[in-house]
Amino acid sequence: TTRLSHLQKTFGKWLICLFIGVFVGLIAYILKLSVDKLQGFKFAMVQNFITSDEPAYAFLTFVGINSFYCLLAVLMVIVVGPLASSSGIPEVKGYLNGVKVPSSLGFRPLFGKIVSLIMSYSSGLFIGPEGPMIHIGSAIGAAVSQFRSSTINFYPKIFLQYQNDRDKRDFISVGAASGISAAFGAPIGGVLFSIEEASSFWSRQLTWRTFFCCMIATFTTNFLLQGVGSSPDIHDSGLLTFGFSRLYLYRYSELLCFCGLGIIGGLLGAAFVFFNIHLNKWRRDFIKSNSLIKLIEVMVVIVITSIVCFYSSSLFNCRYQSQIVVEPSVCEDQTNAEMVQFFCPPGMYSEMASLLFTNPDQALRRLYSRTNNIFTLPALVVFTLFYFALSIMSSGLWVAGGLFVPMMMVGAGFGRFIGQLVGLYFNGIDASIYALVGSAAMMAGYCRMTISLVVIMVELTEGTQYLVPIILAVMIAKWVGDFFNESVYEHLMELKHIPFLQSLPPHSKATKKITEVMNRQVVTVPELCTVRALLSTLEGNYHHAYPVTCSLESDNNEYELMFGGARKRAPYRGLVLRNDILVLLKLRIFYRGTSSELLLDTNFGHDRFIQETSKKPPKLNELDLDESDHERIVDLRPYMNSSALTIHDTFSYSEAYKLFRTMGLRHLTVIDVSNFVVGIITRKDLL
Amino acid sequence: TTRLSHLQKTFGKWLICLFIGVFVGLIAYILKLSVDKLQGFKFAMVQNFITSDEPAYAFLTFVGINSFYCLLAVLMVIVVGPLASSSGIPEVKGYLNGVKVPSSLGFRPLFGKIVSLIMSYSSGLFIGPEGPMIHIGSAIGAAVSQFRSSTINFYPKIFLQYQNDRDKRDFISVGAASGISAAFGAPIGGVLFSIEEASSFWSRQLTWRTFFCCMIATFTTNFLLQGVGSSPDIHDSGLLTFGFSRLYLYRYSELLCFCGLGIIGGLLGAAFVFFNIHLNKWRRDFIKSNSLIKLIEVMVVIVITSIVCFYSSSLFNCRYQSQIVVEPSVCEDQTNAEMVQFFCPPGMYSEMASLLFTNPDQALRRLYSRTNNIFTLPALVVFTLFYFALSIMSSGLWVAGGLFVPMMMVGAGFGRFIGQLVGLYFNGIDASIYALVGSAAMMAGYCRMTISLVVIMVELTEGTQYLVPIILAVMIAKWVGDFFNESVYEHLMELKHIPFLQSLPPHSKATKKITEVMNRQVVTVPELCTVRALLSTLEGNYHHAYPVTCSLESDNNEYELMFGGARKRAPYRGLVLRNDILVLLKLRIFYRGTSSELLLDTNFGHDRFIQETSKKPPKLNELDLDESDHERIVDLRPYMNSSALTIHDTFSYSEAYKLFRTMGLRHLTVIDVSNFVVGIITRKDLL
Repeated sequence: TTRLSHLQKTFGKWLICLFIGVFVGLIAYILKLSVDKLQGFKFAMVQNFITSDEPAYAFLTFVGINSFYCLLAVLMVIVVGPLASSSGIPEVKGYLNGVKVPSSLGFRPLFGKIVSLIMSYSSGLFIGPEGPMIHIGSAIGAAVSQFRSSTINFYPKIFLQYQNDRDKRDFISVGAASGISAAFGAPIGGVLFSIEEASSFWSRQLTWRTFFCCMIATFTTNFLLQGVGSSPDIHDSGLLTFGFSRLYLYRYSELLCFCGLGIIGGLLGAAFVFFNIHLNKWRRDFIKSNSLIKLIEVMVVIVITSIVCFYSSSLFNCRYQSQIVVEPSVCEDQTNAEMVQFFCPPGMYSEMASLLFTNPDQALRRLYSRTNNIFTLPALVVFTLFYFALSIMSSGLWVAGGLFVPMMMVGAGFGRFIGQLVGLYFNGIDASIYALVGSAAMMAGYCRMTISLVVIMVELTEGTQYLVPIILAVMIAKWVGDFFNESVYEHLMELKHIPFLQSLPPHSKATKKITEVMNRQVVTVPELCTVRALLSTLEGNYHHAYPVTCSLESDNNEYELMFGGARKRAPYRGLVLRNDILVLLKLRIFYRGTSSELLLDTNFGHDRFIQETSKKPPKLNELDLDESDHERIVDLRPYMNSSALTIHDTFSYSEAYKLFRTMGLRHLTVIDVSNFVVGIITRKDLL
Repeated sequence: TTRLSHLQKTFGKWLICLFIGVFVGLIAYILKLSVDKLQGFKFAMVQNFITSDEPAYAFLTFVGINSFYCLLAVLMVIVVGPLASSSGIPEVKGYLNGVKVPSSLGFRPLFGKIVSLIMSYSSGLFIGPEGPMIHIGSAIGAAVSQFRSSTINFYPKIFLQYQNDRDKRDFISVGAASGISAAFGAPIGGVLFSIEEASSFWSRQLTWRTFFCCMIATFTTNFLLQGVGSSPDIHDSGLLTFGFSRLYLYRYSELLCFCGLGIIGGLLGAAFVFFNIHLNKWRRDFIKSNSLIKLIEVMVVIVITSIVCFYSSSLFNCRYQSQIVVEPSVCEDQTNAEMVQFFCPPGMYSEMASLLFTNPDQALRRLYSRTNNIFTLPALVVFTLFYFALSIMSSGLWVAGGLFVPMMMVGAGFGRFIGQLVGLYFNGIDASIYALVGSAAMMAGYCRMTISLVVIMVELTEGTQYLVPIILAVMIAKWVGDFFNESVYEHLMELKHIPFLQSLPPHSKATKKITEVMNRQVVTVPELCTVRALLSTLEGNYHHAYPVTCSLESDNNEYELMFGGARKRAPYRGLVLRNDILVLLKLRIFYRGTSSELLLDTNFGHDRFIQETSKKPPKLNELDLDESDHERIVDLRPYMNSSALTIHDTFSYSEAYKLFRTMGLRHLTVIDVSNFVVGIITRKDLL
């Protein structure tokens, strides 16, 4: 039966992963579809006015629709709360590191984030949908695996066994991975992102299930996007396709240029982190939580963005469609045909409008296009600068939105610029590779991911031919960026006071002893304890766990049989959670203080206890205990964790850090040579 | 200075990874070059006799050269020892799991393996070079990072800091990853292989360095293979290229066929494991270590293989080169031109010889070819069966050789067969995709890798268009295979008695207490101990570590100030390694037993101690101690590990297992409620 229940539990996990994948894929589909419709409506309206030669109306319609979309996005965040804004990656990273961010993964933030994201991305703000998809995926992971409702008192039994911290964290990490997979159409990249960036703990089984879930999510999105009836062929293309070429269009000497792109990406990435974090600090300190000012800020940014997009598109000259030179060695390139006409006469196109008066996917596809001369150098410079500046302002606004797409755009912009510049002096330069490598470098520069980023780029462009340039640029960009500051997520977590534990202990504390950092104000409880003593312990502090000490007579008579709340030093026996004590008191699992009743049945109330712990923990002032109960005895032994880790007070700080981080602990008791509790370590003591 | 020395240490690690990458890349290059030359010579000789119409001479030459190559391969193994044979993956996996396989990573096995691999792969045995490259990479990782020579007394100081277990293991894991990267031309796949299959411990920093090393290794190999002078273009193609197509040549309904391929791959993989493991068990029990029989066995297999290759190539009819139909939608396919002529008249080719009378890379390329009708169904069936049967016999022979290539070959064989079979009934079937998916399924079926395998296939074929079919087939093949048995590596480790700890504890023991499995025969030593007592402890057993107990007077006078080898129970203080005690005794780091000299200088001899521990540990009978030394006192406190983990005797087995496995421990001391040592857990207690 152990084996059977184990099989059942494993099968349940796979099933939950399947559901997570399907839901995440479905939401990615809804997102793409809604954004397409909303943006399509907008551009159709505006182009209508342009065609009928009414530029003023066109402009006003453009700004108006954008502002309206944005207004809805920010209203959603104001209604639902701040957790629906931004990308949510710092919160997810923190959660998976072991920090409990209250209610960051509930239904309300999930719903709010989806709606806000659809509206803000449609509005043309310089943000991307991928970051929030990670948060959405995590929230779906939490929702599916912890499915229950206290309102209708529905607690499905098969999910009860996954109510523990470890399983919940695993499902949330699966959800995060599938979110990024569905967004990019990159199942392997999603798994790697979760391994490299999001998760702090790793196991082979988990990776394997994550992989499955990512594939389901990607497949669901693609399946729905194509519409089953219309075409029997599968185009599992992700966001971007990159025309295949018969030749490898770069030479060894060009690796130097790619190194240069890496350096630029690192510098720009670090600059982005610097400016964006300072802006967000300023926002935190001056705007605080004044909703009206936040709303006004968003509206100002969207109006500026709209004006920039519209006017910079008008300022550049029109170019002849027929001037575009298609590289003869390129096997397939569907991107060059569709440039944006904007105010240009038929047969011509506006290069700036093709980048800004369009949706970001299309713009990126054009930047990665294999045709070499669709953009001029000045247009690329202006585009890159505008995009960079406005991305800094847009990130951290009071709407849902991520950074991947804007950073890819900036990277593709300067990459293509440098490619075309080099192409002026040397023959046979393919600027599209430079755009691709520039994107990778820029992303590595701001978020310092490495291997997952490379895989995502490969999956996006469906080819591994440019692996070496991409890897080179990503590595250099990371090194250069690391020289100046940390990744944007690390800084955001600092800003949001999320106590994140890096995988290595900080150097400054490396030589410390654990006794220098541990918390000596540890409160212990005896194994056998009166209700009165427990209540006064719970009232006196808000610790989440208490080391349990021996309370039975030992050989040398040192410890009394203490039923009271004796505070005499006694040896360590285990660890008990505050919430578990509360549940014991709520369920009245206690005895009269006579030795005959005591110790008789250690399973007394155990089933009820397990069931109750999966629900919301009771509050201290909601306990229904009268004076006569106060003298009863609670036997903590069956309910404490006797496999809780302890360390001796001879430990070094860095060894304790590694143990804490690797095992994903929340509390670590420190004992001395007599096995007496001398301190406790929590996450905050280690920072 | 802490920060500076940390930077220096980190920089040193990167430098070592660079060297590992360059060396591994260089060796992969040497391997490829030598094999090309040796095989080229062989096929040229034989084809010469064929052209001059002397089939008997051709046959004899073929068998003769193959046997000669094989003889050299097996002689190398006999000279160098068994560690040069097979793939070495079980040993590497075991090592990275925490098992010390004596001298498996020295210079001798490294050299022997390289030479044996070159000769055995050239001989046409049905083995592959990728598996041994993992072992070679690991050995290079060990050699570069631990570079020193006791012969010329050369101990470079910068490497001294990496002499600890953890760093050494990390470098070996880096080496293993770069080995597979260089072999497949797949840097990302190599990193993932190391994360998924080889390494038991994972950190972000390590992944990042592994990635760097893999890129260097791949790049070095490609750079050398192309020859810098000849061409300025980069072809970073790995082993195989797969013609790009303008269309996605599969439909949703074909996913069913790919599931079928997954099932077949899983079944054949499980069958391979079953037969191969039984054969290897038989080899272990009956051939044992009789070198002559082993040599004869290898010679028998190579003669059979040669006969099969030669005669099955002759048996099939010749086909007209002009009959080959090139798929019009395929953009690029360089493979169809070069089929093998063998005995056929000009303008015709032998399909069997194109698979068997050629090197395996070429054969695989032909099986993956986009041209649909180069092979007939009977040829594919015969080829697959022969290859499957002879691979089972070849794996585990007394020569170096791996399984990746043979399994890819078998998978491509049945995959292409099924693709062509389906193509008889439905239009528009591209058999090459089936071959690719079949290869992936077969590999997943025998080694049960998932994500790294998918990435390797993608990197090999340079396109992500077939991600969904590959992932589907790999997952199904793994599930089907897992239903029957474990992966071939798990069984081989069992066969070789390598105590490998899986990432999850065995179900059968899940409910046990730690007191049921721990070793109670634990030998402790006091902090202050006479040389005599230490010597008798070391002589009495061969434990690798001893818990150290308190020997100073405590408050309640319980523990005497014991200079002797007192065995009285005393509280736990730390853990000391056997080798460290030996070094202390060798360096004569001990005191007269007077309290005035004692405790004066805790750093006495510390530098010498650190330097000495990096060398080979001294032997007990080599210690130069006379009778008067025996009464001296060794103070173990500065040399013991006071941050060694302990658990209480209340722990459950499964929690202890997780701790042991996750933290990569070798010893775990069990203490009771008084902090007295009651047992110790080693790897073998947990199995």
